[in-house]
Amino acid sequence: MNLNEFQTEWMGKFDDYLYSELGNCVPMQESLHEAMAYSLMGGGKRIRPLLVFATLALAGGDVKKGFAPAAALEFIHTYSLIHDDLPAIDNDDYRRGRLTSHKVYGEATAILAGDALLTAAFEMLAESQNLSDSQKIRLIALLAKAAGPNGMIAGQMDDIEGEEKKLTIEELMQVHEKKTGALIEFAVSAGCLVADADPHFSGKMQAFAKYLGLGYQIHNDLKDVVLDENETGKKIHHDAEMNKNTYPSILGTKEAMLALNDVIRNAEGCLDELAAEGAFPADERDKIIVLHQFLDYIRI
Amino acid sequence: MNLNEFQTEWMGKFDDYLYSELGNCVPMQESLHEAMAYSLMGGGKRIRPLLVFATLALAGGDVKKGFAPAAALEFIHTYSLIHDDLPAIDNDDYRRGRLTSHKVYGEATAILAGDALLTAAFEMLAESQNLSDSQKIRLIALLAKAAGPNGMIAGQMDDIEGEEKKLTIEELMQVHEKKTGALIEFAVSAGCLVADADPHFSGKMQAFAKYLGLGYQIHNDLKDVVLDENETGKKIHHDAEMNKNTYPSILGTKEAMLALNDVIRNAEGCLDELAAEGAFPADERDKIIVLHQFLDYIRI
Repeated sequence: MNLNEFQTEWMGKFDDYLYSELGNCVPMQESLHEAMAYSLMGGGKRIRPLLVFATLALAGGDVKKGFAPAAALEFIHTYSLIHDDLPAIDNDDYRRGRLTSHKVYGEATAILAGDALLTAAFEMLAESQNLSDSQKIRLIALLAKAAGPNGMIAGQMDDIEGEEKKLTIEELMQVHEKKTGALIEFAVSAGCLVADADPHFSGKMQAFAKYLGLGYQIHNDLKDVVLDENETGKKIHHDAEMNKNTYPSILGTKEAMLALNDVIRNAEGCLDELAAEGAFPADERDKIIVLHQFLDYIRI
Repeated sequence: MNLNEFQTEWMGKFDDYLYSELGNCVPMQESLHEAMAYSLMGGGKRIRPLLVFATLALAGGDVKKGFAPAAALEFIHTYSLIHDDLPAIDNDDYRRGRLTSHKVYGEATAILAGDALLTAAFEMLAESQNLSDSQKIRLIALLAKAAGPNGMIAGQMDDIEGEEKKLTIEELMQVHEKKTGALIEFAVSAGCLVADADPHFSGKMQAFAKYLGLGYQIHNDLKDVVLDENETGKKIHHDAEMNKNTYPSILGTKEAMLALNDVIRNAEGCLDELAAEGAFPADERDKIIVLHQFLDYIRI
């Protein structure tokens, strides 16, 4: 099995689940439902949910039990994009080749749609049918920590403050770890938690997620410099205009490419060690290929 | 015991708890911590937490067990004010006689501080030491429902959309029920839940909360018309300028005053019935006076 097949197997079902959960959360307020759906069903690659499922499958768990945490994670990822795109923050008019939420619905609705997705994420987890109370509580605590003022939001705040000063590469790595890494690490932690994976497996998978998250952000920074607008679906050289601290702006493009390659090699190393140790059920061996292929998202 | 004494007994301890919870959630990002603290510790009357505690006390429960849900509720109430005050929504420069968050810290920080308070509310509940997993899960589900896209946020969205049309009084009541009522009802539900109150007691208290919430909003609408700026701490006649649907704008000031009196009488009726039935431990009888005095907040 490769990532493509894995995606084909799960994404249709998961998208249906996501849309029906949205309907459960917002049956009555039409404008809010429309704005939430526009961003939630707006062509995201669903990398984070897929990562929950692949981790869960590799650990020998039941992928369906990962639907609720994966959906909560996708709700939160989506809210963060809506708020990040607002004029007061990144001021982006396009995302994934479509107008951003506030360009379509206005700022007030975009703010509320983001707030609504964030709140509904926790409702969904608390009300999920397939998890024990103890699993729910641990998932809610982990997700709130990853997305909250010590995780993603701290990274966003650091990012805004960083615009006024030049960061070192170590400082930038910390911003990235919180802003992008925390939710990607949650995906893997959620997969391990739902599968009741042992600590050794979980530890290695978390290390993999750390590299993947970091690589994801370096890749994102580089994309803005080396790819063209058709490929990225959003305005390029936007970071440079905003005077953002990025891997290429601190290290130069060539060194940033090398750093990305290092990160990818380290991530591969984690998976190779797990495979060499046979740290998962033998009939899930093919899922290691699926996980390897997540790194294709961040290659340039 | 009256409300004043009850407040004196609990508010110092609760404010310390609130501030230390904020410290737990945001140890590292200074600007975020400052903006969150500015609004959270900014002189709110803490009506919702007090209502959790008074309900809990009347039911014979341990008030300290109400600290976590009350703090989560206050975090969420505070976030909703920060986002509501934003230029894109209500565009308020003052709140409780002080500059609003975005006037002090800028819009980007205000948006993120609100997001952070909302997220941290759920972290706090999930990590609370004094509640069972089952209580935590039910509280998280209730709070997310009350604050989310079927509760408070739907009400905010209805409110924005209502600016462009004239609502009937029934439609306005529904907006209020969601926008203001839902969180006030949560306060009472949380008190009942933590105290393991019986369904009859909880039902009557919830009816009381419904009237209190509605009265609170009618009072708020009336304040904008009949009180002056020094008393309200914010700009008056703001609603009329924004062309908002309010009780006085639909019914006229006099009828709105009468409606408020009706609501207060109904709320008193709920408490009187509970008292007549002796539906709570005898040595908590004095707490019924405390609850009666919540209605003083909404008298004009």
